[in-house]
Amino acid sequence: MKNKVIEKNDIKESPLFWPAQLDGKTLLVLDETLIPKKLSYIKVRSTTEAVEVIREMKTRAFGQLLVVLSTFLLELNLHDQASSSSLLQQLQKTAKALNESRPTFPFSEVTGMVMHWAQSAVSQNQDIKSLLERNIQGYLAGIRARRLDRVRRIADLIQHGDSILTHCNVSGELAMAAYLCQRNKKNVHFYATETRPYFQGAKLTCWELQLMGAEVTLVADNAIGALLADGLVDKVIVGSDRNCANGDFANKIGTYQIAVLADEFKVPFFVLTQPSTKVKSGQDIPIEFRDEKEILNFSGQAIFPNRVQALYPGFDVIPYQLITEPIAINVN
Amino acid sequence: MKNKVIEKNDIKESPLFWPAQLDGKTLLVLDETLIPKKLSYIKVRSTTEAVEVIREMKTRAFGQLLVVLSTFLLELNLHDQASSSSLLQQLQKTAKALNESRPTFPFSEVTGMVMHWAQSAVSQNQDIKSLLERNIQGYLAGIRARRLDRVRRIADLIQHGDSILTHCNVSGELAMAAYLCQRNKKNVHFYATETRPYFQGAKLTCWELQLMGAEVTLVADNAIGALLADGLVDKVIVGSDRNCANGDFANKIGTYQIAVLADEFKVPFFVLTQPSTKVKSGQDIPIEFRDEKEILNFSGQAIFPNRVQALYPGFDVIPYQLITEPIAINVN
Repeated sequence: MKNKVIEKNDIKESPLFWPAQLDGKTLLVLDETLIPKKLSYIKVRSTTEAVEVIREMKTRAFGQLLVVLSTFLLELNLHDQASSSSLLQQLQKTAKALNESRPTFPFSEVTGMVMHWAQSAVSQNQDIKSLLERNIQGYLAGIRARRLDRVRRIADLIQHGDSILTHCNVSGELAMAAYLCQRNKKNVHFYATETRPYFQGAKLTCWELQLMGAEVTLVADNAIGALLADGLVDKVIVGSDRNCANGDFANKIGTYQIAVLADEFKVPFFVLTQPSTKVKSGQDIPIEFRDEKEILNFSGQAIFPNRVQALYPGFDVIPYQLITEPIAINVN
Repeated sequence: MKNKVIEKNDIKESPLFWPAQLDGKTLLVLDETLIPKKLSYIKVRSTTEAVEVIREMKTRAFGQLLVVLSTFLLELNLHDQASSSSLLQQLQKTAKALNESRPTFPFSEVTGMVMHWAQSAVSQNQDIKSLLERNIQGYLAGIRARRLDRVRRIADLIQHGDSILTHCNVSGELAMAAYLCQRNKKNVHFYATETRPYFQGAKLTCWELQLMGAEVTLVADNAIGALLADGLVDKVIVGSDRNCANGDFANKIGTYQIAVLADEFKVPFFVLTQPSTKVKSGQDIPIEFRDEKEILNFSGQAIFPNRVQALYPGFDVIPYQLITEPIAINVN
C-alpha cells in the first residue's frame, strides 16, 4: 500500500484528513470504500458525478463538506467562459443537486453560503469566479487550520496509558492526534468498532491508526458492553455529522448506544463537534434510512440468502446530556 | 430449502428446537453454520467428532447440551460389547473431552451427572448401558417437555401488537412461541440483530421466524439504541447460555449492551433461564475469547485485508438487576 503521509512540522497528515483535491477541471476524491485495499482517487468532472460519490458513500463525513465546496470551484473551472447570469444559473443547479444528495446532512447551509456570495458578486458587479474562488478557498483554509488545532486539543486530552474507544471514523483527526501522542511519549491504545454495515471502523479507522503508528484492536459493535464492563476503556471519542443549537448531535448509527453505555459505566464521552445553531434540537434532524441491501450484502455476496427485510437507519441522534465534553472546532 | 417442520397438536417444531438425533452408531447434528443455505446434518461417530462440532460452533446453545448427552448414548452404542470397567473408562474419557471443549459452558455439570449414574450402576452391579440409556433419555424427555411448556409461557407473555427484539438465537423456543401467537390471532413483529461475527441473528433467527410464518426485520447490532429511542420495541426477549445462583447470566456477546439500553429506555427485558445454583455470580463465569479470525474473515474472505488485531469475547455476563423477569425453565 502506498502511504500518502505528509509530514508537516510535528503533524503527520492522514489521507482521510483532506480527502479531496481540485486539479483544474477534475476533482480528485479519495475512494474510501476501497480502503484499506487501495488508496485510489475518483476523478469527478461534474456536479452529477460529485453527487454520486456522496450518495454512494465513496466519501463521507468531512469529505462530503470538502466535496460540496470543491464542486463549486470545479463548476467555476468548467464554465470559465460563461456569462455571469449563466454561471449563476449553473451554480444554482449545483447547489440544488448537492442539497438533495443525502437527507441527514445540512449541505444547504454550506451551499446557501456559497450562493449568497455569488449573488453578492452579481449585485455588486464583481467577477463571480474570482470572488467565489477567494471566499471558498479562504473558507477551506480556515477549516483546515481549525481542524489541525483540534487535532492538538484531542492529543492534549489523551493521557499516557489511556485506552480510547472510537466508532466509525473521525476523518483523520483522531489518528493524527494518536501520532502526536506518540511524539509526546504517551502510550495509548485504541479500540475501533467494526461499524456495520460499511465496516468504516475496520476498514478506515484501523488502517488510519496503523498508518500513524498507533496500536489498535478491532471489536464487533456488540462488544462495547463487555469492554466497558471490564474497565478496558478510559475515554470514548467520536465524531459528529451534525450538531444542534442545544448540543444534541447526529452521528453514525451505533453512537447512541455507545453514549448510553459510557454513561452507565461512567466513562467520559467526548464528541468532536462543529457547533451550529441552524437546527434547534435532535428531533429536527431528518434521519436517512439507507437501502437494506447495504446490510444484506457483503462485497456483493448475500450474507442472508433468503428473503428477509432489514432496517438500516444511517444515523443516531444523541441527546446532549450524554456528552461529557464537546471538543468543538473553534468557530471564531 | 426442505422445511423439516413437524406439527404436533398446536405447536410447530423448529429444526433448531431439537437439533441432534441419535441413530444407532451415528449422531446426526444439525449444521447450524449452513443455515439458511442448507438444512444439513453432520454425522458424528465419536466423542472426538462431537467435541469438534461443539468447538467449531456447528451446534450451539441448547444444541450443545443435547450433543453432550447424546454423545454418551453414542459411546454406549459404539461399545455395546465392552466390559463394565472398559466402558466406564471410555465414558470418563468422553466426559473429560466434552468438559474441555468450550470454557464458558458448564458441561461438567451434565457430564458429572452422567458419570455419577454410571458409577452408581457399577457399585450397584447394574448394567451401565441400560441404566444410562434410561436415565439420559428420561432426562432429555423431561427437558423437552419443559421447553415446550416454556414455549407456551413465552407466547402468553407476548401481547397482540407487540414488537419484540431478540439477539442471537433462542434455539427454537421464540420462533415456536411466534407460531403460537399467530394461532391465537396475535399480531407480532420481531426485530432480530445480526449478531456479529457469526450472524446467528441474520442466519438462524430470521430464517426460523420466517419458517414459523412470523414477520421479522433484521437490524445491525449497532442499531439497538436507535430502535429503542424511537419506541419501536415493546419487549426484549433473549436466551441465556449460563445462569448463576444470584440471577446473573451469560449470553452471546451483545446481550449486555441490549440489557443496559432496555433499562435506559424502560423496555421490559426478559431472559429464558435454566436456573442453576452451581455458580454463585457472574464474575465466576469464565469468558471464552474466540479466535480473532472469526471477526476478521467472512465466508473465507478477509474483511480487513491488512494486519490488524481483533478481540472477540464470545459472551457477556449480565447482572441480574437488568432483568425485568426471567422466564425460567420449570425445574420441578
